[in-house]
Amino acid sequence: MENYYAGNPLNRLSYLRSSQAFLTSALRSPKAKFLPLDSLSPLCKHDKDGARHLHFVGWKDVEAVVGEAEQVFAGVDGKRDEDVPELAILGLQAKRLGKTRVGDLSHDEKMRYFLDQPALVFLGVDERSAPESAKSLPVSKPDEHSTLETHSPYGEPYWALDVSALPDLKQKILQENEGAKFMELRSGAQTMPTQEASIAAEARALVDWNTRNKFCPACARPIRSVWAGWKRSCIPGEPSADGVDGQATACISRKGVHNFSYPRTDPVVIMAVLSPDGEKILLGRQRTWPARFYSCLAGFLEAGESLEEAVRREVYEEAGIVVGDVGYHSSQPWPFPASLMFGCWGVAKTEDIRVDLDNELEDARFFTRDQVLKVIQSTKPMQLSREQVARIDGKEGAASDKHDLADAKKKADDEGSFLMPPATAIANTLVTAWATGKLFNQVPVSVSKM
Amino acid sequence: MENYYAGNPLNRLSYLRSSQAFLTSALRSPKAKFLPLDSLSPLCKHDKDGARHLHFVGWKDVEAVVGEAEQVFAGVDGKRDEDVPELAILGLQAKRLGKTRVGDLSHDEKMRYFLDQPALVFLGVDERSAPESAKSLPVSKPDEHSTLETHSPYGEPYWALDVSALPDLKQKILQENEGAKFMELRSGAQTMPTQEASIAAEARALVDWNTRNKFCPACARPIRSVWAGWKRSCIPGEPSADGVDGQATACISRKGVHNFSYPRTDPVVIMAVLSPDGEKILLGRQRTWPARFYSCLAGFLEAGESLEEAVRREVYEEAGIVVGDVGYHSSQPWPFPASLMFGCWGVAKTEDIRVDLDNELEDARFFTRDQVLKVIQSTKPMQLSREQVARIDGKEGAASDKHDLADAKKKADDEGSFLMPPATAIANTLVTAWATGKLFNQVPVSVSKM
Repeated sequence: MENYYAGNPLNRLSYLRSSQAFLTSALRSPKAKFLPLDSLSPLCKHDKDGARHLHFVGWKDVEAVVGEAEQVFAGVDGKRDEDVPELAILGLQAKRLGKTRVGDLSHDEKMRYFLDQPALVFLGVDERSAPESAKSLPVSKPDEHSTLETHSPYGEPYWALDVSALPDLKQKILQENEGAKFMELRSGAQTMPTQEASIAAEARALVDWNTRNKFCPACARPIRSVWAGWKRSCIPGEPSADGVDGQATACISRKGVHNFSYPRTDPVVIMAVLSPDGEKILLGRQRTWPARFYSCLAGFLEAGESLEEAVRREVYEEAGIVVGDVGYHSSQPWPFPASLMFGCWGVAKTEDIRVDLDNELEDARFFTRDQVLKVIQSTKPMQLSREQVARIDGKEGAASDKHDLADAKKKADDEGSFLMPPATAIANTLVTAWATGKLFNQVPVSVSKM
Repeated sequence: MENYYAGNPLNRLSYLRSSQAFLTSALRSPKAKFLPLDSLSPLCKHDKDGARHLHFVGWKDVEAVVGEAEQVFAGVDGKRDEDVPELAILGLQAKRLGKTRVGDLSHDEKMRYFLDQPALVFLGVDERSAPESAKSLPVSKPDEHSTLETHSPYGEPYWALDVSALPDLKQKILQENEGAKFMELRSGAQTMPTQEASIAAEARALVDWNTRNKFCPACARPIRSVWAGWKRSCIPGEPSADGVDGQATACISRKGVHNFSYPRTDPVVIMAVLSPDGEKILLGRQRTWPARFYSCLAGFLEAGESLEEAVRREVYEEAGIVVGDVGYHSSQPWPFPASLMFGCWGVAKTEDIRVDLDNELEDARFFTRDQVLKVIQSTKPMQLSREQVARIDGKEGAASDKHDLADAKKKADDEGSFLMPPATAIANTLVTAWATGKLFNQVPVSVSKM
């Protein structure tokens, strides 16, 4: 079962992210495709059927702002302390400041240099056109002669570039690419083909992480991007929070494994909770959601609990329902900002929902299979507005337009009169799988006999 | 299937973490149990049979260093900007400095105040002795009269306290609790009962997160603990990185949802990869591991990929094997520092392992069911030394004692002559489940007829 935002066709080549030679060659390749993002919205274009597609630009379009490819990844692994004073400046800043070594910068310039780095992320290569024998293998250990051609001769390298702080480039891109626009990923995203949506998801999550994590949480020094956007590293010799440079105390993040140097992925559980007889399903609604909108309960996994325990805790916290058996159905990347949704099922021990709920939900109820099927079969794909999307995420606090809960509840009582998330949301996948009797298909054919 | 480090008996009462009144009452309750941790090692004691148990102290033991309970959680939700100048100081620092308001502190004192906060984490309450009707329900909305007694009259509140920077308290605790020692959680952990290990896992992950995340990654200001250790918040009016105070620019983390304010849980995939006929299992070894030690392949989930895609990518990257069908078996909290291991199975399309591997593995091979069963049945519980544990985690870089790979491989060729992770590791769970024909039991009895 492959959910929307999964199904990424790119080979991430994660073992080559620390190779300056490989990355440099993949950056300036004439085959390289760059996805510009403005405030996390990727550049898109609608085709004549109204479907949305990602719109890429080439190395020539971004070269002027990214700078010398050879310099972009210098000191790329962030490990060689002795290289630090010679660390090359990311191209853009070097060009702006007319300087080439960290040591040549003033303190203010150093701060700006690190903070203004636009996020540039290597997403992987598309090898779909390559014969099996020419695909990159993990065995291809990189060295100083590694290039895109030696590792993936048919590969098209994909990159994401944050252009939010580059108004001239933004303008140029919009002028030279007629019909292209920066479009928020969620609203109307369901018209984008799955494989493109999955590339956009990877790009959005990584650009967001690089953009918001500017300082080391352990020592407050500005941190720099290494591994082409997949690691952010605190390096001795770079300016510390108090402006003292060079001989600074080594940050604890330089010793041992520190997960805050790597992109986050926050696991979330989302669950189809069934009545004890399996004939009804529990759905709830938050007060900030659009009227009559119901969905599966969900919540973040916490430290020290298993997937199954998280499912039980969330359902108990939000609806007062004790859940017995729990299982996994499928998962969905959810780059808003960086979650992975674990779609599960659970079987309630009772149907006694508490309606005097805590702050999470304003209503929760068991719907029958008939009620749900009617909604699934009748609902046209929900095109949520940008504002509605923000409200479903709870990002905007209280709903801006008031709705009448009593009225919403009454309408939901009428069969088929409630709204569900669109087919691109895993909540819809789970509810549909249950309604059509496919929630428990965990053992695929190839292994059913093992 | 419940793995070690799961099975936490505490009700986390996460909906009460923002209630100053409730937390205060739970803190100074005579029933409160405090687990002291020194450099992430919890206080433990061996019983006469050699089993390890967590050892708790009471409110009276920690009161002097934690300070006035009422003050500890003042401004607890971190949301009310107008309260900021009056924010109470965490008790310990107030006592040390003899001051009660942020405004009374010098800049240096402010920096120290925020950075020296010892992590204090509310773990939940043990309600196992409570009658069903007296258990805390999520419907119990907290107000200023909320107490432990009104919400969970039978509950015993559990807390974790980092004593790493409190030498006097450490010494006092060790003197007054004969036989108690701070013991690293992993080495020999398998002698600790599961439910205690799960409490220790929660405590370790949260104390680690609070301890290492001292500065806001978005603006470099020192951040403070709110929600009793479950959120860290950047608050305007507190000192910024450049020492400018009060009128400082609002940090972006104060608007909208920012996952870096919440504890991390990093999802990891770990997989039992079977040969195409299901009769062999793929295990590998990293060069830093103890000689003859083999385990399941594993790796971190990345942004924009599903659980299934992560399994396929990792196996391809590490062993050059293409995996077809993939499924979920069970999960395990892994607080080193803050992972959740998703135990999966996968079916390889070929057995052509590449031995000229990338940097992750030095050997990988398919073992037969007989070979594996012999190891499972013969191995006494592996008591790894602290050093071996560190090496299995790859924390120490290269192995300090050299071993001969050729020799190790040869020994592993002899039936039953390799070593596997102990029964408390999910890798062992997965291998054992496969060897005994129980890897695919995904649909429990209660729903098998649905």
